[in-house]
Amino acid sequence: MRKLTLYIATSVDGYIAAPGDDLGFLGKVEKEGEDYGYADFIGQVDTVIVGRRTYDWVMQHVPEFSHADKETYIITRTPQERIGNIQFYTGDIGELVQILKARAGKTIFCDGGAEVVHQLLSRGLIDDFVISIIPIFVGDGIRLFKDGRPGGDLELVSAKSYDTGLVQLHYSRSMS
Amino acid sequence: MRKLTLYIATSVDGYIAAPGDDLGFLGKVEKEGEDYGYADFIGQVDTVIVGRRTYDWVMQHVPEFSHADKETYIITRTPQERIGNIQFYTGDIGELVQILKARAGKTIFCDGGAEVVHQLLSRGLIDDFVISIIPIFVGDGIRLFKDGRPGGDLELVSAKSYDTGLVQLHYSRSMS
Repeated sequence: MRKLTLYIATSVDGYIAAPGDDLGFLGKVEKEGEDYGYADFIGQVDTVIVGRRTYDWVMQHVPEFSHADKETYIITRTPQERIGNIQFYTGDIGELVQILKARAGKTIFCDGGAEVVHQLLSRGLIDDFVISIIPIFVGDGIRLFKDGRPGGDLELVSAKSYDTGLVQLHYSRSMS
Repeated sequence: MRKLTLYIATSVDGYIAAPGDDLGFLGKVEKEGEDYGYADFIGQVDTVIVGRRTYDWVMQHVPEFSHADKETYIITRTPQERIGNIQFYTGDIGELVQILKARAGKTIFCDGGAEVVHQLLSRGLIDDFVISIIPIFVGDGIRLFKDGRPGGDLELVSAKSYDTGLVQLHYSRSMS
């Protein structure tokens, strides 16, 4: 069965953005020629799930949506016409993921944000977690993991550190 | 100068205890003959700082205080007579750490809990962080890092993974 993978970067203190949706801390590990395995990962992906807030942020900051070649679902409460491969999904996120997983295909990539991650985690729907830890304290902002989710076992698949100080941890949801 | 080191375990989602001060998740990585470097670390320590709440928890769960051979400061608002090497400190934690760092000695170990960590981080007083990440989601509870602290750069000193799935990350506060 296809897997739903969360692939995301966080500060050591667990934030995916500083106050004001500031992602400046990611710049600390920018290095020419080093993509931390992103190209390999995205090559296995054919479907993307993104929260509406994150999508809006991206569309304000880049000239075009970076996953325009993939089947993309923007999770939102506001119905909107599809734009090419981009669909605006107002239904239940659990149903969406179940339908997608039942279909043949490659990896489903959850590209954030925190609210979508929370909804997916609350329903136990994320299979793999690739978390890149940036060597910095952000201090405040939007947390990767909100309070009040179910617990659950994980299996460490790999831990890789880079000379910029980034550590990439890969966990799978434990089926045991 | 002596260093103040935070040496602590957390879940992947950033909790040091589940609701009800439950530390049961630490059991997941218990393995005979594997102490994850703790003996080496504690051998370099001669002074311990612990929050009162954590101290009370420990005293309810173990027959005797495990750092009784070290100069220990329990951070509390309630004055209390010292017990052997254990002093109950009601003053400013920043002053305490400055005094301790100015003295000759070995590593100062902050053994939690979250409130003392928060006070120390808010004042930029922790020099080294040894964070052991347990491969589990706890889902809710007491967070290692509270919101509303100053940010700051870190340097990755080492990242080590164990066959139990524990990953131990060692960071130093960046002086640059």
